[in-house]
Amino acid sequence: MFIIGELINGMYKSVAQAIQAKDAAFIKKLAHDQLAAGADALDLNTGPASKDQVSDLAWLVQTVQAAVSAPLCLDSTKSAAIEAGLKVCQNPSFINSTTADDEKMDLYFPMAKQFHAGLIALTIDKKGIPQDKDRRLELAAYILDAASRHAFPIQDLYLDPILMPINVAQNQLFAILEVIKDFKMLVSPAPKTVLGLSNISQGSSDRHLVNRTFCVMAQAYGLDAAILDPLDAALMEALIAGEVVLNKAIYCDSFVTAYKKSKRSC
Amino acid sequence: MFIIGELINGMYKSVAQAIQAKDAAFIKKLAHDQLAAGADALDLNTGPASKDQVSDLAWLVQTVQAAVSAPLCLDSTKSAAIEAGLKVCQNPSFINSTTADDEKMDLYFPMAKQFHAGLIALTIDKKGIPQDKDRRLELAAYILDAASRHAFPIQDLYLDPILMPINVAQNQLFAILEVIKDFKMLVSPAPKTVLGLSNISQGSSDRHLVNRTFCVMAQAYGLDAAILDPLDAALMEALIAGEVVLNKAIYCDSFVTAYKKSKRSC
Repeated sequence: MFIIGELINGMYKSVAQAIQAKDAAFIKKLAHDQLAAGADALDLNTGPASKDQVSDLAWLVQTVQAAVSAPLCLDSTKSAAIEAGLKVCQNPSFINSTTADDEKMDLYFPMAKQFHAGLIALTIDKKGIPQDKDRRLELAAYILDAASRHAFPIQDLYLDPILMPINVAQNQLFAILEVIKDFKMLVSPAPKTVLGLSNISQGSSDRHLVNRTFCVMAQAYGLDAAILDPLDAALMEALIAGEVVLNKAIYCDSFVTAYKKSKRSC
Repeated sequence: MFIIGELINGMYKSVAQAIQAKDAAFIKKLAHDQLAAGADALDLNTGPASKDQVSDLAWLVQTVQAAVSAPLCLDSTKSAAIEAGLKVCQNPSFINSTTADDEKMDLYFPMAKQFHAGLIALTIDKKGIPQDKDRRLELAAYILDAASRHAFPIQDLYLDPILMPINVAQNQLFAILEVIKDFKMLVSPAPKTVLGLSNISQGSSDRHLVNRTFCVMAQAYGLDAAILDPLDAALMEALIAGEVVLNKAIYCDSFVTAYKKSKRSC
């Protein structure tokens, strides 16, 4: 599974302070630590406290790519900030994210194509978060239709079914597992799938246990990528074991160590 | 998920010695400990070292049921031992197990009916362990046909797709997840499914990690029951979280504690 580290996010107070103070060493360390723990890419989000998301996201991109060559996932609700980030980004990139609304898709599909970026598309629109599987599939089909209209390469599209907190929408979680599989059947070649994992345990207890239990289930349903905390060692070990169980990484007696080493050598 | 504790098994040296010495206190403690850890039922197996499986299995049944009222799963390759155990068993019971061979099914379906026992049926026959999904489905269909001929109640039948060790048949594990779901589609009402979990990590490293990762995946594919080590606390917590994620147990902020308490009060 493709792991996108979530920790460079201004939602965390220490990161917001580092962005405010332009503390490059702090951000670079957070980039290094996540990649050393097994992340394949890094999400960059200035957070809501940023007074200038456009320049702050561009600064984050430049700071991180001065330290690492991993793909960067530009995460903002402001398209101007994402565009500013893409303009300075030399690493492979992702846009995080478009919704299923036409005005957003008409903006982000061409932008992603222009910058050869992957695009994360949330199955949500102005009517709100879907409450069931059918609505998620309907929105996914709508997104795929837009991708086709924009001649966007499907292998660069990551559909996100929107993971809801377990203490809010416990009865939707199994449907989310099922749509991860169902999304793949909508078109050929299949789109990829991604989840923002930590959403599931917002405000709940035993967060790490809930996160890794659901993530392993999603992995078994074919999830391609997840935005998560790679410093959660038990989560990463569960996902490594998951890759081996699913025959996506070769078993050997030191499979955890071997997998970690193979990641670091990439 | 219905948890069958695997620890009263003469394959373990200490248990073999306790059976040999008729050490009832040792066996009763092992029964209590497994149920306190969250097991719903207990597997009883004299192991290969027993010189008289018939009297030893009957002794195990009598010893355990003098201490606990949980269902007992009589586990032997010798039908005479299983029959002797069933004759003295007052708790609800399971036969573990029949294969898909006619002579075994013609013996065990009537025996299970006579004693109102559940029956675990392995999708294996004289030709050996299936190497793929289709052969497992073929044998499951053959077993279901025999169940129908014997007018055996399908809700008491537990199909076991035979979990193979990860270091022997890594490429079969995903197929096993899929057949757990597929078995349910063969007839209506659907048969139940069961796995002997520890098989997956026979001779492998990181056994507990492999066990709980696969078991959580199997749970997400609809597994009804597993024979496992309930004293593996991380495994049990993962399965509890799994029940909550799958909306089979209600989320609350102390869901692990609450689930354990609900089990103990049964």
